[in-house]
Amino acid sequence: MSEPSPSEFRELVRGFFEQIPFNRQIGLEMHELDLEQLTISACFELRPELIGNIWKNILHGGVIATALDTVGGLTALVAAYRHLGDIDWQEKIQRLSKIGTVDMRVDYLKPGRGESFTCHGSILRTGNKLVVSRMELHNDGGELIATGTATYLY
Amino acid sequence: MSEPSPSEFRELVRGFFEQIPFNRQIGLEMHELDLEQLTISACFELRPELIGNIWKNILHGGVIATALDTVGGLTALVAAYRHLGDIDWQEKIQRLSKIGTVDMRVDYLKPGRGESFTCHGSILRTGNKLVVSRMELHNDGGELIATGTATYLY
Amino acid sequence: MSEPSPSEFRELVRGFFEQIPFNRQIGLEMHELDLEQLTISACFELRPELIGNIWKNILHGGVIATALDTVGGLTALVAAYRHLGDIDWQEKIQRLSKIGTVDMRVDYLKPGRGESFTCHGSILRTGNKLVVSRMELHNDGGELIATGTATYLY
Amino acid sequence: MSEPSPSEFRELVRGFFEQIPFNRQIGLEMHELDLEQLTISACFELRPELIGNIWKNILHGGVIATALDTVGGLTALVAAYRHLGDIDWQEKIQRLSKIGTVDMRVDYLKPGRGESFTCHGSILRTGNKLVVSRMELHNDGGELIATGTATYLY
Repeated sequence: MSEPSPSEFRELVRGFFEQIPFNRQIGLEMHELDLEQLTISACFELRPELIGNIWKNILHGGVIATALDTVGGLTALVAAYRHLGDIDWQEKIQRLSKIGTVDMRVDYLKPGRGESFTCHGSILRTGNKLVVSRMELHNDGGELIATGTATYLY
Repeated sequence: MSEPSPSEFRELVRGFFEQIPFNRQIGLEMHELDLEQLTISACFELRPELIGNIWKNILHGGVIATALDTVGGLTALVAAYRHLGDIDWQEKIQRLSKIGTVDMRVDYLKPGRGESFTCHGSILRTGNKLVVSRMELHNDGGELIATGTATYLY
Repeated sequence: MSEPSPSEFRELVRGFFEQIPFNRQIGLEMHELDLEQLTISACFELRPELIGNIWKNILHGGVIATALDTVGGLTALVAAYRHLGDIDWQEKIQRLSKIGTVDMRVDYLKPGRGESFTCHGSILRTGNKLVVSRMELHNDGGELIATGTATYLY
Repeated sequence: MSEPSPSEFRELVRGFFEQIPFNRQIGLEMHELDLEQLTISACFELRPELIGNIWKNILHGGVIATALDTVGGLTALVAAYRHLGDIDWQEKIQRLSKIGTVDMRVDYLKPGRGESFTCHGSILRTGNKLVVSRMELHNDGGELIATGTATYLY
């Protein structure tokens, strides 16, 4: 297989994203992928099994961490893809398939209340081995629920 | 209801733990609670829906973050309970019900491979408002998969 | 002493900032304080004693952490001051004098090269007990050298 | 120059440590280096210029971050040296000279009070590109003042 076109690449990323089993547990779906700005957004709906506190009906912190890590990692994947430039497609795929989270900080700013949530990822730095992503989670009322910063190795 | 005995308290914590919906998604079960050392451990089994990378068959980073945050938070809850000392039980319950994660760092040290996983929480510091917990996740082969540090407000 | 005017308050903060002994070691000087946007910036020059790597002539990571923590803490102080609103000035001073850093993450994005550096702080969240600040350090060429996120208790 | 003996290596590390200008500002001195356990400790004395809060006479958070980052980085350097094994000494030096901090979390557990302080570093993981170190700072009364976790790239 040869280098995909931008729209093919976007669909590849979406396919990669949506086949991850634990993302399906959360119901996380990729919404936008901007190959120029290197930003990604993904959404999910509140569902009973995502609750961490049944009295307050708020998201489990682990759901938030999952959304942030997933979106941050996918943003890092796209940034690494761009950074690798014109190397052979097979070699690119090889490098990118090894991407993994090194560490992540999550700040829980407000209780995770809402009917639906949007997670947005952007890039702080892309290097030859590491990418640093920054992530934000908003609820459907536009409130900033959580932010994260994570380092990915590829 | 009045102040529970240590064994009643242990069962209360277990009950609190196990009714959290998202913990059930992970299959996380409380294993040990040491009221003297202020340590907690919890376990879960690998299941197909917890996978983050289907080629490598490893845990999603969000599953790891969920386990660490849950165990760290529960350890913080117990430490806060002890720290509050002899105040009225109803007031204690009131204070403790407000506990929440402020922020967390996760270090992903090795790929999350294994059949079952144990997460262990201990206390770095208990203050009048904040508790800092440290967490570790090992697989059934005894490998250290991830560590975390989190701050909880109560 | 009674509640200061905005310009008096700005000078109080500057005075507080500049009498901190270790800030003088770094040569850190407050540059701007925006009481509406709740942002602060501070600057320092490269000096031989701030070097961490003499072959590469770059800042010590500890200098960067110091600048980020100081500016983040001062931004948090101003946010807490605003959040406390119309309570008695003496009580405000009492509360604010107890402010301290709970935890901080620093991401070192590029080597700390440059003749002078500007550190900028803004607020992610202000609560009744905690403030979360975000910080950035740029060099005189406009490069983003480091970012940080820190939690402060007051 | 060829591969040094363990005692020569220890002196090389000490020399490297002590020529770092900003470490001299802090007065940080290497105390122990255990090449088997991969642990390092370093000490410094309270001095007026290290103060962050003149009313409480406590260390500036930046001093603590500096000590933690320095000791963590040196521990990572030694771990990377061991991990590189029997490759050519010049190549080793080349690789090790590029080591840098990727990110760090510091938890400030207690006010930095004391006459002298000891910082201890150990290793959480050594990989082919990254090392994760954990650090602790105690005062002369044996109190745990701060902990840190940092990722280093080499």
